[in-house]
Amino acid sequence: MTVFNIVRKKKGFSTVGKIMKSITYTPIGVIYSPHLDIANMPIQPSNSKGIMGYIEINPEYAGALRDLDGFSHIILIYHFHMVNSFKLTVIPFLDDKSHGLFATRAPKRPNPIGLSVVKLLSINETRLDIENVDIINLTPLLDIKPFVPKFDNPENPKIGWLTDKIDKMNNVYSDSRFR
Amino acid sequence: MTVFNIVRKKKGFSTVGKIMKSITYTPIGVIYSPHLDIANMPIQPSNSKGIMGYIEINPEYAGALRDLDGFSHIILIYHFHMVNSFKLTVIPFLDDKSHGLFATRAPKRPNPIGLSVVKLLSINETRLDIENVDIINLTPLLDIKPFVPKFDNPENPKIGWLTDKIDKMNNVYSDSRFR
Repeated sequence: MTVFNIVRKKKGFSTVGKIMKSITYTPIGVIYSPHLDIANMPIQPSNSKGIMGYIEINPEYAGALRDLDGFSHIILIYHFHMVNSFKLTVIPFLDDKSHGLFATRAPKRPNPIGLSVVKLLSINETRLDIENVDIINLTPLLDIKPFVPKFDNPENPKIGWLTDKIDKMNNVYSDSRFR
Repeated sequence: MTVFNIVRKKKGFSTVGKIMKSITYTPIGVIYSPHLDIANMPIQPSNSKGIMGYIEINPEYAGALRDLDGFSHIILIYHFHMVNSFKLTVIPFLDDKSHGLFATRAPKRPNPIGLSVVKLLSINETRLDIENVDIINLTPLLDIKPFVPKFDNPENPKIGWLTDKIDKMNNVYSDSRFR
């Protein structure tokens, strides 16, 4: 990894340290799904009810799965491997107006990292069967975390431009705009 | 990035494609917080009520923040930059028994990627003021996503080994075990 030093004082925070310039990860496994094309996919796990897939974890990590089967839902952090560019503003699937990229879940991002909370059905050695899969086949998996409502579910969230759109999202599928 | 080809047929999924061997990201900004040491930190945003911090986004991404201020909560995906090793099983802060690493939120992971849902207070050009910050100072930020309950909040989650522990987590702080 590449680092450079910074010294900074700002509004009460005094910071001296190293900021990384680049970070390299190695996939811990692969996500398999029936979605073979970036177009015509369900756009979130909530639109993927009943869609099954599975994960194959690299065998060296099998021991890290112990007790995960007690959790009904897991957070998958993965790499959008079909993505190789981004724009600062996008027209997302759920609107006809453009929004800043970070105010959307569009896959074309400076660091194309995907996040899906899926249902965990079973674990068999290195294979995890999952449901509500909105992820394209052969996606490189970077991390698995147990979903814990107290950690991940804040109170009284407001959802900005999505407020008027969210109830109309059923049956909205992706198209080729982020190819 | 490095890729290798695979051909695979398994339980109805037929897959032909490239699997990445390594993935490199570049931080989009830096997270500043009053937490200067990996020990004695609140262990989740839910234990960090009222703790303020801020993000400085690299100026080239300022345009991607448009409309994010309508969201009260944002998902931060970041690099645990103090981490340089992991074990397959850990004793997490909330238990005295060991669990598989992927069944915990411990920071020492094969890919040390952190995830926190924090409160967004305001955005001023490239600065985002945030609250409920359980993140150490100078953490490299990889992505920001708007938190959307319908996307990120599954119904009836079960939380395995945490079931009996979660209500006792208030006032549990980190120690030096993941240093």
